[in-house]
Amino acid sequence: MSDVVVLLSGGLDSSTLLHLLLAEKRSPIALSVHYAQKHSVELASARRVAAAAKVELREVELGFAAAQIFSGARSSQVGKNLAVPEGHYADETMKSTVVPNRNMILLALAGAYASSAGIGTVAYAAHAGDHPVYSDCRPDFIVSCALTLLLGANIVLEAPFVELSKAAIVRKGAELGVPFALTYSCYRGNLIHCGRCSTCVERREAFDLAGVADPTRYEDQTDFWRTVTKAKP
Amino acid sequence: MSDVVVLLSGGLDSSTLLHLLLAEKRSPIALSVHYAQKHSVELASARRVAAAAKVELREVELGFAAAQIFSGARSSQVGKNLAVPEGHYADETMKSTVVPNRNMILLALAGAYASSAGIGTVAYAAHAGDHPVYSDCRPDFIVSCALTLLLGANIVLEAPFVELSKAAIVRKGAELGVPFALTYSCYRGNLIHCGRCSTCVERREAFDLAGVADPTRYEDQTDFWRTVTKAKP
Repeated sequence: MSDVVVLLSGGLDSSTLLHLLLAEKRSPIALSVHYAQKHSVELASARRVAAAAKVELREVELGFAAAQIFSGARSSQVGKNLAVPEGHYADETMKSTVVPNRNMILLALAGAYASSAGIGTVAYAAHAGDHPVYSDCRPDFIVSCALTLLLGANIVLEAPFVELSKAAIVRKGAELGVPFALTYSCYRGNLIHCGRCSTCVERREAFDLAGVADPTRYEDQTDFWRTVTKAKP
Repeated sequence: MSDVVVLLSGGLDSSTLLHLLLAEKRSPIALSVHYAQKHSVELASARRVAAAAKVELREVELGFAAAQIFSGARSSQVGKNLAVPEGHYADETMKSTVVPNRNMILLALAGAYASSAGIGTVAYAAHAGDHPVYSDCRPDFIVSCALTLLLGANIVLEAPFVELSKAAIVRKGAELGVPFALTYSCYRGNLIHCGRCSTCVERREAFDLAGVADPTRYEDQTDFWRTVTKAKP
C-alpha cells in the first residue's frame, strides 16, 4: 500500500525526490502526466527511473485535453509550438517556456488521484532555481496550493526542495544514488539533450557547481552553457 | 474578444452565472469539461444553454485521463460507479457523490485556458447550498483556489454565488430570464431528471422556496422530494 503520490516528470529533481522518499522508508507511487509537452520524451525517462527504483508508475494521458486547453498559449513547450530559446533560465526570453498554470493542473490531478486511492500525501519537486520565470514554482504559490489541496481534498502537500538550488539537489541525489543517466531535462525533446536550452544549461551548471560528474551526453560539446552561466551574476 | 472564462456544467447555477455575466455586459466564453461523469448528459445542456445565449463554448475532453485519475474513487459519479443515493443533499450518504478534488481540477484547467487565451478572469458558480458534503465548494476552499490561481497564473477568480442559496440563485435566474428548461441537474444522468437524487431534490426545493415555476419534467411524480426536504431542519 502506497502512502505518498510523487509527481515524476523523469527529470533530475523529481527523480531525486523519489529516491529521497525511498530513503525515508516511505512507499511512493509515481504519477506522470502527458500534457502534449514538446519534451514528452521525458516520460520515457520517468518509466526508466521508476522501473529502476522498483516503484509503480501511473501515467495520465492528458494530451488531447491539454491541446484544447493550451491551444492559445504562446509557449515553446505546448500549443503554438514556438522555438525553444537557448540560454540561461534567468533570462527574460525563458518566459516562452512557461506552460500556463501547469503546476496547478498537475497538483490538482495528483491530489485527485491520491484522494481516490486513499493516499493522504502528494510530493512535488519544485526547487528554488525555478523561481525567476515560473510563478507556479515559487514558495508563495506552493503554500497556496498546499492549502487548496488540504481544504479541497484533505491532502498534505510536501515540497522538500522548495528552498534548495538545483546544485544542492544534485548533491543530494548523488548521496542517494539517483541514476542521473536515466533522467531527462531538455526542453527540445530530442533523444539526446541539446545542451543549449535553459534546462540543459541549468543541468550542466548544477552538476558543475555540485562537483558531481555529469553522466549526460549533450549534442552541443562547446562551452556555450558556461558562457551564458558566467554572464549571470 | 472574451474577457471572462465561465465554467459551465449545464446546471442551473452555472447557467445563471453565464446570464449574470451577460447582464453585466461582460463577454464570457464558456468552458465545459467531460470528466467521465455519470451525468455527462449535462454537457448537452451546456451546449443548449450556451447556444441559446449565443456564447461560445469550449468543451474539454478529460474522459480518459479522468478514468485513470479517479479509478480508485468510491464515488457514485465517477470511477467505481456506485449507485446514486436518493434523498437530501445534507445527508451523510451524499458523500458518495463527491468526486475527489474535482473543482480544483476544473479551476486549474479553466485558469490554464484563460491564461493561454490572454483572458484575465475565471468565473465559477459554487453556492452556499453545496457546503455540507462538498469541501471543494466551501468559501475557504474558494478563497484558497483564488489565491493559487492569482499566484500561479495571474488569474482573478470570481465566485459571486458563494454566499447564495440555490433558491436565491433561482430567483436571480428568473429575473435574468435564464432558460431553466434547458438546464440539467440530475446525478443519475438519464435524459429525464429522476426527481429523487440529491441534486433533483435540491432543484425542486429551490424552485419551491423561490416561488418560481419549475419547468423540469421529473420521472418521479410523488412527493418524495418534499418528504426528505421536510425531514431537514
